[in-house]
Amino acid sequence: MTFPLDDRGLLLGDGLFETMLWTDGGLPHLDAHLARMAAGCEAMGLPVFDREQARLLCMAAPREAGLAEVRAAVRLTLTAGSGGRGLDRPAAPVIRLAARAAAAAPVTTPVDLVLAKTRRNEGSPASRLKTLSYLDNVLARAEAQAAGADEAVMRNNHGDLTCAAAANLFWVADGSLFTPALHCGVLAGVARGRVIEAARSLDVDVHEVATGAEALDKAEAVFLTNSLIGVRPARRFEGETFGPHALAERLREMVRD
Amino acid sequence: MTFPLDDRGLLLGDGLFETMLWTDGGLPHLDAHLARMAAGCEAMGLPVFDREQARLLCMAAPREAGLAEVRAAVRLTLTAGSGGRGLDRPAAPVIRLAARAAAAAPVTTPVDLVLAKTRRNEGSPASRLKTLSYLDNVLARAEAQAAGADEAVMRNNHGDLTCAAAANLFWVADGSLFTPALHCGVLAGVARGRVIEAARSLDVDVHEVATGAEALDKAEAVFLTNSLIGVRPARRFEGETFGPHALAERLREMVRD
Repeated sequence: MTFPLDDRGLLLGDGLFETMLWTDGGLPHLDAHLARMAAGCEAMGLPVFDREQARLLCMAAPREAGLAEVRAAVRLTLTAGSGGRGLDRPAAPVIRLAARAAAAAPVTTPVDLVLAKTRRNEGSPASRLKTLSYLDNVLARAEAQAAGADEAVMRNNHGDLTCAAAANLFWVADGSLFTPALHCGVLAGVARGRVIEAARSLDVDVHEVATGAEALDKAEAVFLTNSLIGVRPARRFEGETFGPHALAERLREMVRD
Repeated sequence: MTFPLDDRGLLLGDGLFETMLWTDGGLPHLDAHLARMAAGCEAMGLPVFDREQARLLCMAAPREAGLAEVRAAVRLTLTAGSGGRGLDRPAAPVIRLAARAAAAAPVTTPVDLVLAKTRRNEGSPASRLKTLSYLDNVLARAEAQAAGADEAVMRNNHGDLTCAAAANLFWVADGSLFTPALHCGVLAGVARGRVIEAARSLDVDVHEVATGAEALDKAEAVFLTNSLIGVRPARRFEGETFGPHALAERLREMVRD
């Protein structure tokens, strides 16, 4: 599938996406991803998309890429469709949907993190959605690579921790689990939700907080989550190093697909 | 021209654009727009694009759209090209360039403005570039439309004025001209630069400032600028109304194409 030069996703980043794990010949969390995309459409004022069509596109993508038998990442892309010149959407946007799969081997190494200079925009609803306007994340990731690290931790303009360029952020301190609150400019990750639920099922207190990067100085463990990596422990954040941690390992096992 | 589903402009908003005026069979400010796009590529870590190819694409677009004889808007779109899954750019990105023209009648009416809830991200270099991650501007414009206005004035997360969804912002107070400073999260508009230069040639003091929306309460005149409208006076901002103003009219004449 190709997109025409009048597509608003291409011209203005006016759209949404989801990335989900294909494993054992299925998409175990497809419903959660489609529900989040539907909520994103509502928040952005886009019309409802055809969830059955989206489901079929996602399920067909691994086979079309010759990846049906392996672990793969399926990305579903939704754009606001074609439009005229300028920012205004047409009166009745006609959504464009496409899915695509790529091989995604399990990630088994811990992650080296740095603090990005590029901030997330807590003052826009887009900071809590998985939108096609993802350049701030691209720039933060490029900062990490330039620093010889794997991934970047982003703050908002107020200085509060938010998430990594392509993952949610958690840390353990005093036996409790902490993660940045959504209002700080954080995507409600599907894996984030599963980790919070898993921790609560272990009677671990979970705190969604607004706090600066100094909170990580006192952490016993730091880890990232997303739909492809599940839980990925951090080995390093700026000057600090972390070893394996029992709770992080336990949660990692619990949300493994 | 169409864009494949692995284009990073489409997938991640990883790219830039320029919008310029075609009038009297030419693009009077083409060089300034191409220079700005080149500076944007450098700021984003993208390779240099072929400026001659870009020039030819822009010059050909009105004829291809059957608009060579009329006033038109030419949009040049640059993407980071095709890439693999995820945020990381390929080691050597191959840029994709395309241009397209649309009719653009002169705008003769004053503009009704509201203050947007959606903020600009002063903590990202993208807030000072014309990038394909333009969703915050789309959402701000939608707020204006929902409020029955034409255009939205955006603040950054600190509360400082920045610009309108698709224009730079100026106001006149105490005989001086004011506009938000670039570091607040403002695009260095080509028309903005021309207006500042025109005002200085009239010995009018120009102040690039960081200030909240209350500055507009004390303004004698408010106007917007961009490459298509030139100078467009505001008739209304939230509860306030403005009549014609000599300096705004003078500047409007001076930068008219």
